[in-house]
Amino acid sequence: MTQEAIQDFYPDEVAVCYGCGRNNPNGLQIKTYWDGTEGLCRFKPQPHHTALRGYVYGGLIASLIDCHSVGTAAAAVYEAEGRELGSDPPLRYVTGTLNVRYLRPTPINEELLLRARIKELHDKKVIVTCSLYAGDEECAQGEVIAIRAPKTMLTHAEE
Amino acid sequence: MTQEAIQDFYPDEVAVCYGCGRNNPNGLQIKTYWDGTEGLCRFKPQPHHTALRGYVYGGLIASLIDCHSVGTAAAAVYEAEGRELGSDPPLRYVTGTLNVRYLRPTPINEELLLRARIKELHDKKVIVTCSLYAGDEECAQGEVIAIRAPKTMLTHAEE
Repeated sequence: MTQEAIQDFYPDEVAVCYGCGRNNPNGLQIKTYWDGTEGLCRFKPQPHHTALRGYVYGGLIASLIDCHSVGTAAAAVYEAEGRELGSDPPLRYVTGTLNVRYLRPTPINEELLLRARIKELHDKKVIVTCSLYAGDEECAQGEVIAIRAPKTMLTHAEE
Repeated sequence: MTQEAIQDFYPDEVAVCYGCGRNNPNGLQIKTYWDGTEGLCRFKPQPHHTALRGYVYGGLIASLIDCHSVGTAAAAVYEAEGRELGSDPPLRYVTGTLNVRYLRPTPINEELLLRARIKELHDKKVIVTCSLYAGDEECAQGEVIAIRAPKTMLTHAEE
């Protein structure tokens, strides 16, 4: 498994995401580690991340699946192209669609584990599936279409 | 249009949601107003709710669509049952599935408007479609299957 998270290789100017940007001190700091087969992410919800009392807010679950799946897409494409993580030109994906199915209430007092896999890998888009677990229980499933960020967006981001 | 948001009628013990609970001071305080045809929600993102610089984080958009659609479902069912908002027994919905399609980057410096409509209304579930606008531009579309919260969940929530 990678020692560093894929998000730690995002260029500074595009590492401001509320979900996973290391340069967003108010954000969730979601981290994705790629083991060659899966993207792995661990996250401990805060007490205020509640839905009904005792359960994790669905929007947080959606956020975790979003950033972790997009990060997994980037890590997988670096590998598929035989490149080191973070090598130039930088790879950055954005979310085209995000689908989440909530299977059961997710307990808020446990560390969550997300496991993401590549379903389809195309030139400009990657389809990623992701499951979220609390202990042994699968609590949510997601599918994300990640789109390679267009240069215009990255250029705007650097302004 | 309703003078008060549907979320302001949720019973205290289930009004703790990070997205829309009035009793969650750390939350987003999303509010849904029902006009008899649509659920309307206005939200001004904070500067730290960023994705790439200048654009709104997709996980926040998913959260807005989630809570606003679930709130719209509850408001529509109160009306369909000929009941006053908040009358007993309380109606509370949870998210079964959440699908979001990001049409274009959403600018972060504008107030956002969400418009949600009922697609299907069944006994225990409501399907809601939702569009998110920045000015005249539709930036995202969502569809939510909202499930009437089972008594066991509400009971647990009251513990």
